[in-house]
Amino acid sequence: MDKLTTAQREAALTSLGDWSYDPEEDAIERGFGFKDFSAAFAFMTRVALLAEKAGHHPEWSNVYNKVSIRLTTHDAGGLSDKDIDLARRIDALGT
Amino acid sequence: MDKLTTAQREAALTSLGDWSYDPEEDAIERGFGFKDFSAAFAFMTRVALLAEKAGHHPEWSNVYNKVSIRLTTHDAGGLSDKDIDLARRIDALGT
Repeated sequence: MDKLTTAQREAALTSLGDWSYDPEEDAIERGFGFKDFSAAFAFMTRVALLAEKAGHHPEWSNVYNKVSIRLTTHDAGGLSDKDIDLARRIDALGT
Repeated sequence: MDKLTTAQREAALTSLGDWSYDPEEDAIERGFGFKDFSAAFAFMTRVALLAEKAGHHPEWSNVYNKVSIRLTTHDAGGLSDKDIDLARRIDALGT
């Protein structure tokens, strides 16, 4: 799994839209808001299943109705296709 | 729900043992390690159920097999009995 080139990363970010790029960590991140903790944790459960299926896991945090997800690929030393694919699958949950 | 006094907090922390105190945030925190993501998320699901039942929710994060939990009571402006109770219930899960 190779790290994305700058051109690949920029194309991917444009197509993702809602994710922002963190150049310090070569990672992408997105925040999600829900009605309450129950709804936030239901979303987290769906993301956990996507992540386990993909064999690629987020760095993420939750405070009540808010979930923050950060994706990067440590084995690649930065952002890879695995992150972009997982981001698309998370977005496809339709929150 | 009142914020704990210093004496109450110190007594509670002694009895909890595995939690550390963050004076900046008037919060307690503990890290947990598991075999893999699946085991870590199983634990998170149990904590989510405890939290929802208690009506008191953690600030927490997960990276693969590690879970970090921070407890404080925003309505009380710091650590309260709700945090100590939830910490005890989490410890009682027996990770």
